[in-house]
This record gives sequence, C-alpha cells and structure tokens, in this order.
Amino acid sequence: MKMKDNAIWLGECEVGDSYVSDTYEVTEEEIIAFAKQYDPQYFHTDPEKAKDSFFKGLASSGWLTAAIMMKLQVASNPFGFDLVGVEVKLEWPSPTRAGDILHIRTEIKDIKMSRSKPNQGILTVETITKNQKDEVRMVMQNKILGFTRPK
Amino acid sequence: MKMKDNAIWLGECEVGDSYVSDTYEVTEEEIIAFAKQYDPQYFHTDPEKAKDSFFKGLASSGWLTAAIMMKLQVASNPFGFDLVGVEVKLEWPSPTRAGDILHIRTEIKDIKMSRSKPNQGILTVETITKNQKDEVRMVMQNKILGFTRPK
Repeated sequence: MKMKDNAIWLGECEVGDSYVSDTYEVTEEEIIAFAKQYDPQYFHTDPEKAKDSFFKGLASSGWLTAAIMMKLQVASNPFGFDLVGVEVKLEWPSPTRAGDILHIRTEIKDIKMSRSKPNQGILTVETITKNQKDEVRMVMQNKILGFTRPK
Repeated sequence: MKMKDNAIWLGECEVGDSYVSDTYEVTEEEIIAFAKQYDPQYFHTDPEKAKDSFFKGLASSGWLTAAIMMKLQVASNPFGFDLVGVEVKLEWPSPTRAGDILHIRTEIKDIKMSRSKPNQGILTVETITKNQKDEVRMVMQNKILGFTRPK
C-alpha cells in the first residue's frame, strides 16, 4: 500500500543497515496534554510539583516518547512494507524534557526469513531516540514483519 | 506524593498479588485521532483502506493500546509510590478495535530489594490488556521502581 520511490524490501537490506529521521521538538504543552489524557501522574502534568519528584522537574511520559518515536519511524523508514510490530522492548535511560529536539536512528540487527512463507520474515531493529545534546531518551528493540518486493 | 487510603508499599505485597482496573471504551474517533498525530499508517487512520490491510479493518496503533493501558494502570494500581518504569516488554497478540471495552489485570511476578538502598526495590509486573470478549490486546512485562512505606 505504500508508494515510495526507492522503497526497500526484505532481501534488499542487511544487518547493519541504518537510517536516521528528521527531528521533532517536544513542548511542555504536548507533555502535559498527553499526560492528562493517558498518564496523569503529577511529574508529567505539573511543572511545579514535578520539582519534588524522582525526575526533579517536568518529565514526559515514556509513552509519549514512544509515540513520538513512532511518528518519526513512520516518516523515516525506507521500507516498502507497512510497519507492524510483533514484539517490543523499551528502556528509558532518561526522561524526555520540554525543549528536547528528538531524532531517531534505527539499525537492522537481525533478519530471519520465514520457513513456511518465502515472501515473509522478521526483522529485528534497534531504534535509539536521542535529543539535540545526544542524550539517550529511549532504546527500543523491535521485531517487525517484513515482506519481499511484490512481483 | 500520592495520598491514597490503604496504599500498598514494598514489603507489604508479594509475588502473585494482583489487581484489576475499571474499563475504558475505545472509539473509532480516538483510534484515528491518535494515529494521525503519532502513527499515521492507513490501517490506523482510514477505515475503508484498512479493509485491504494486514489487519483487515481499522486497527488501533499499538502505542494507543499502550497509552490506554497506562491510563488504566495509573487509576487502578494500589501502590503508594509513583509508577516509574525502568524497562518494558510489549506484545500485541491482536490489535485493539473500535468498540473494544478494555480493562487490565496486573500481577506481581517478582520483587527484588535493592542491596545498597534498603528502602528501594524493583518490582516485575505483568499487565494483560483484554477487551469485553476476553481477547488479549496487549501483554506487558514491566520493571518498576518500588519503595517501602516512608517512616
């Protein structure tokens, strides 16, 4: 369904290949709006009270960091197939902050072709989300479905 | 910072303890709005085109399922300490659909007290997100920071 020029399919990429996204600026407004809807803990919604928290200041919900990573992922991935995640592992070494200008870098770590379906496989990719100071905000290991180029 | 009656702290819960949330109804509007902002793939944003996709119909972004799980988690958890995730593993056995009425059940799978900080530890919890038909939409393994009751 995706109509990209130069799209890459399974069989046309290898372990070690990588791509980098554009950037996305995270605002205090977005951190608070997302948290009020989905993760209403005071250190995500109240800049004043957050100063006394574990995070010592307003911190983004890790799930907003994940959502922004996905936005950048959809925009930056070179694949011809859709992005359907099977299994994900996430770590947040530090919280995303207001003013962070995030980008992601994704690298293919493993490719396993399906034995029963020769046009299909599982790619393991690692996506690192960093801000403009190179601080790591999220590390994701993700298994996604891949397909060979349609004939 | 949380002021709950009957809050539970580290040392007052054990492996096997569990809790269940209230329910949350997922609408087509929310699926599309979230996806347009964070996961703009056609099977998350366009009910018609989605019929021809891997999901055979409009499917929620897995990241919206995660965000709703977190909303239910914040509302249902019995802990006196804040919820700070360290490491998460997610699987989506089936996609969340419009009309799903979701709830979560969380069970403590492991408790490891810190050696250096006696008031601190890591809880491993498993949270299963299901709809009203008992279909599993997400399985999460999560390591969270836990604290003993303040003296």
